[in-house]
Amino acid sequence: MAYPQTSFIHTSLTPDTLLGQRRQAVSVNTLQYQLDVLKKTGRYDAFKLKWHPVYDRAPEVWPIPDHLFWDSDVAKWIEGACYFLQQQSMPAIAKAVDELVDMIRSAQQPDGYLNIHYTVVDPGNRFTNLKDMHELYNCGHLIEAALAHQALCRNDQLLSPICSYVDLLCKIFGPGPDQTHGYPGHPEIELALLRLYDRTKTERYLSLAKYFITERGNATGCDGRHYFDVEAEKRGADPNMKPAFYPEPRSLWYHQAHKPIAEQTTIEGHSVRAMYLLTSVADLLRLEQSHHDLEAATYRLWNNMVNQKMYSTGGIGAMKQWEGFGLDYFLPQGTSEGGCYSETCAAIGVMMLAQRMLQIDLDRKFTDIMELCLYNAVLTAMSTDGKKFTYINQLASSDKDLSQRDDWFTVACCPPNMLRLLGTIGGYIWTYNAMAEYRSAHIDVHLYVGAKLTFDCGSDIVELQQETNWPSSGDVKFSLRSKSAKVDIRLRIPGWAESWKGYLRIRSNWLEKNPDFTLSIPLKPRLLLSHPLTNQNTLTIARGPVVYCVEDVDNAWVDDHFESVLLSAECKITEEEVHDPKSGISYVALNVTKGASILDTEAFEETPFLTNDKLSKGKPLQELKFVPYYSRANRGGKGHMRVGLKKTD
Amino acid sequence: MAYPQTSFIHTSLTPDTLLGQRRQAVSVNTLQYQLDVLKKTGRYDAFKLKWHPVYDRAPEVWPIPDHLFWDSDVAKWIEGACYFLQQQSMPAIAKAVDELVDMIRSAQQPDGYLNIHYTVVDPGNRFTNLKDMHELYNCGHLIEAALAHQALCRNDQLLSPICSYVDLLCKIFGPGPDQTHGYPGHPEIELALLRLYDRTKTERYLSLAKYFITERGNATGCDGRHYFDVEAEKRGADPNMKPAFYPEPRSLWYHQAHKPIAEQTTIEGHSVRAMYLLTSVADLLRLEQSHHDLEAATYRLWNNMVNQKMYSTGGIGAMKQWEGFGLDYFLPQGTSEGGCYSETCAAIGVMMLAQRMLQIDLDRKFTDIMELCLYNAVLTAMSTDGKKFTYINQLASSDKDLSQRDDWFTVACCPPNMLRLLGTIGGYIWTYNAMAEYRSAHIDVHLYVGAKLTFDCGSDIVELQQETNWPSSGDVKFSLRSKSAKVDIRLRIPGWAESWKGYLRIRSNWLEKNPDFTLSIPLKPRLLLSHPLTNQNTLTIARGPVVYCVEDVDNAWVDDHFESVLLSAECKITEEEVHDPKSGISYVALNVTKGASILDTEAFEETPFLTNDKLSKGKPLQELKFVPYYSRANRGGKGHMRVGLKKTD
Repeated sequence: MAYPQTSFIHTSLTPDTLLGQRRQAVSVNTLQYQLDVLKKTGRYDAFKLKWHPVYDRAPEVWPIPDHLFWDSDVAKWIEGACYFLQQQSMPAIAKAVDELVDMIRSAQQPDGYLNIHYTVVDPGNRFTNLKDMHELYNCGHLIEAALAHQALCRNDQLLSPICSYVDLLCKIFGPGPDQTHGYPGHPEIELALLRLYDRTKTERYLSLAKYFITERGNATGCDGRHYFDVEAEKRGADPNMKPAFYPEPRSLWYHQAHKPIAEQTTIEGHSVRAMYLLTSVADLLRLEQSHHDLEAATYRLWNNMVNQKMYSTGGIGAMKQWEGFGLDYFLPQGTSEGGCYSETCAAIGVMMLAQRMLQIDLDRKFTDIMELCLYNAVLTAMSTDGKKFTYINQLASSDKDLSQRDDWFTVACCPPNMLRLLGTIGGYIWTYNAMAEYRSAHIDVHLYVGAKLTFDCGSDIVELQQETNWPSSGDVKFSLRSKSAKVDIRLRIPGWAESWKGYLRIRSNWLEKNPDFTLSIPLKPRLLLSHPLTNQNTLTIARGPVVYCVEDVDNAWVDDHFESVLLSAECKITEEEVHDPKSGISYVALNVTKGASILDTEAFEETPFLTNDKLSKGKPLQELKFVPYYSRANRGGKGHMRVGLKKTD
Repeated sequence: MAYPQTSFIHTSLTPDTLLGQRRQAVSVNTLQYQLDVLKKTGRYDAFKLKWHPVYDRAPEVWPIPDHLFWDSDVAKWIEGACYFLQQQSMPAIAKAVDELVDMIRSAQQPDGYLNIHYTVVDPGNRFTNLKDMHELYNCGHLIEAALAHQALCRNDQLLSPICSYVDLLCKIFGPGPDQTHGYPGHPEIELALLRLYDRTKTERYLSLAKYFITERGNATGCDGRHYFDVEAEKRGADPNMKPAFYPEPRSLWYHQAHKPIAEQTTIEGHSVRAMYLLTSVADLLRLEQSHHDLEAATYRLWNNMVNQKMYSTGGIGAMKQWEGFGLDYFLPQGTSEGGCYSETCAAIGVMMLAQRMLQIDLDRKFTDIMELCLYNAVLTAMSTDGKKFTYINQLASSDKDLSQRDDWFTVACCPPNMLRLLGTIGGYIWTYNAMAEYRSAHIDVHLYVGAKLTFDCGSDIVELQQETNWPSSGDVKFSLRSKSAKVDIRLRIPGWAESWKGYLRIRSNWLEKNPDFTLSIPLKPRLLLSHPLTNQNTLTIARGPVVYCVEDVDNAWVDDHFESVLLSAECKITEEEVHDPKSGISYVALNVTKGASILDTEAFEETPFLTNDKLSKGKPLQELKFVPYYSRANRGGKGHMRVGLKKTD
């Protein structure tokens, strides 16, 4: 059960947990809300292949037409809806899925081709700009939608036309002399093809995924040159008309195509592309153990990302211009400091990659990052009511970019990605393996969540239940039930735990005698120091997997986005359980009652450099209140927020 | 005597001082070296208006042809050469000046027009792209060359054709209904026109300068719109073909044309453009006291620049892409930290602006910055032998951008700008005012330099001599000589002096009794702390006006550009007088014998955030050697250098 998209069905979440509440918000609000947006914006009907006024509009980000992602927006909504429909009946949502599937079927061209833009707006130019135009990316999302639809409806109404489209791609792309030696500018189809192969066992889907992965970045792959260069020349592209998001005229690294993946040494470029790509690579490594060079590269790129290019929230991508990775240790917290993108989809991508890595290497370092992203960079991206979203998840607000959410985005990848992630979150909690012939099973518990796992093991049914208020509390009560199967469990002890760290194995013979047991990992606030090379010199408060922030709604005196607040490493922090009756949300708030102060900047009068070392410790603050970063921007206020505070000596 | 370009002739520098040596290097090497480069690259003959192979080349920085600045490269060399020729005979240089003047005269079109590119390469498109194509900028430099040439040769061989060209501009540009309501993308002509007005007293030159200054950024100036927008539309410019250096398709702020200067609140865009523009504004304020809104804006922009956007070296411009100002307090030291441009010409521009400001407001804050730039961001840009240059003056090297100099640049503004600055440096040292009718004079001493000022005061000759080893020593011996004129002196006491600061007035009745006196300003190392909002958390060592750096040539163990070196605010610093027999240069080196260490980064293993506060103070260094930043990259080594070192608690 390598994929959360299929294994989640075996998990039911306890409704009143943090994740249960977020899923509930999606069921009650988000699915219908996003469906309404799809209808209102023209996306819903787009597969009818009629002209839409938007198609005439000049692109917001040249040269990407604003509607270029509509295929994927619809596909991701279908996919997310299907996951929820597998666990809950929602007739209006189900009806919309049916209608969309019908429309997609009707949009397919006689040869199998299926894409709105290149059928309606720019016919005749299919596959002329793989680099920028997201054609194969859209196909990847259609594949994932089709897989979810088949799992829900047990029919091939969507999967069959999509397989026809993919069959067309298998003819067009590949190493053969008559085939196109190309690969997508935005990876996604690779991971989808591997899942499609897993479902259909069709070898050519595996081959195409592998071709896209291994051909990528080949400097001599197409007529002895880079495919993207040849493609651009064929189009007659003027190199001075470079896409707005390219930092340089020929930014191959933006697409992770500057060299073959196996040779890449640092993680570069657009962060969502990088995560989707590496997710497929990690999945390929699980399927075929022979790719040692790709395996080494994947670890290398993971380490570079986590050690040098990741925010304390698990967010990645400091650079707004190319929505991606900056220099090592360049991690400013917000716009006013030089950037912080930390896109929602990128954090979801880190979770996907970490989940795939755990299938080949059960190392808690992957799980820690997966959980860090979930409780911070990902959960922060949707309001508690499920109706508002963030695309960018900065760690500090500024007058230009307040801490607030939007209803929707022109490029709307993030909101439906939340559907997909929350729809399948049960599949991230644990992985299991039932060996019916041995009447045994083992379960690896990655995340602590109030939830129940149920699966067959031969004639037996295995159940593992967690009761916990995590991440507010570190106590987790486990109950294991099975008639006769022997079950081994491994529990992840996080890296921030003060005792043992790693996957703790509990053997079946102990569990037979102790089917009900409690794991306790004490949660207490800890101060995170930023790496000196980040030039941040900040302290961040975390408690368990949760990173905290300050908001003006709790600290009403603030007028500078907390940029002049100082925090001492010796500060005193107290905990306070908070229950918000309006949202029904509970969390642990933190109060700093000693050790916070406000910087006195008057000393710097005529230069940003002070000519002596008389910087004062600042004016003490009686109290500074912190809340989980995931809960930010839910209670009004003026949008001032910050995660890391300047460290005072 | 408002202009150093005219007043310098009254000052002779003592040869063996730091500035005297640099001037000597220019006389002996730089003028001839740069002349050879002009000849080798095709610039020398360019005014013959023949085709050159370079004209066919695709621009390095689209859409600016590589040869676009050739007019100004030649003009600045002529101007610089004329300054030196006024104080020293150099027949080969003088001959080249004559030849160039002849060629420029021969290049003038019947209507007065004078520009290489639009005559040879793109005829018929004159004044169609004021925004990007530097046509008026080139004219500004021709004006300045003509003024210097006239002062040297006492004839109008160059001034006369240039005035004809300017007369043409006076017809074309202006507020009239048949005139073009435009202004240059790159300011320069404004300050040149004001100097031309000062020399010729021709009112229309003042009017044109004033028009360019006040019309700039007028949102409704041309058919109710921005001139640059109308101009682009007329050319049929595709907004997606935005110049490579534009951060946004319509980057009016890059040109300081986003709003009228009087309404600008922060200093933005290309830093050289900003400095040349404000230099002209400050000069206009001297000429006409009625521009209160422009005056307020000039102070506002100066303060924003100095307080929020200036490096400790006086360098400005953190952003490489647009060669200009970044966000407030965004002052990374080098490429590996996110940027540091600090262009040589921009620092020279700050000196020009400060010098003009002193003519309207004798405040030592302008002088301090002028001196800071001179001894750091400017002097560091030329090797001691005068044959190698820097364009970018980063405060920290990286593997990508080592601390080293180049022979020349495609866009060669900086090297000949050093000629102009060093040629006229005597004019920056002091300003004087002789009131012959009252038999009195006063002298404001801005800079301490071994030098002698001589000027007439009626039938009397006033002489003021400084003997000093500044900036190595803070002792300055003054000798004032005049037969009968009463002379008042004001001496600038820098802001970093520990006693009194400001212009100290010494009255003539005291000076009559004490014509020989000594000023002593103790120079000792001091630590500069960066503003907390810079996110730098560094300590920089300065001594007097000189900022220090560490180089690998003195600290051979370094392999990471000193990025992991820590410095304590309690460090112990000793001074050492160094005389380099090879270059003949003397300076005070500094050794930190206690309080420097090397960071232990092993603690940050799996994240840029450390989960506890156990960061060690690092491995102590026995010794860390510092040299003046201006002397960097003169003694070999591998190019590792840094100014600010991480502050340890």
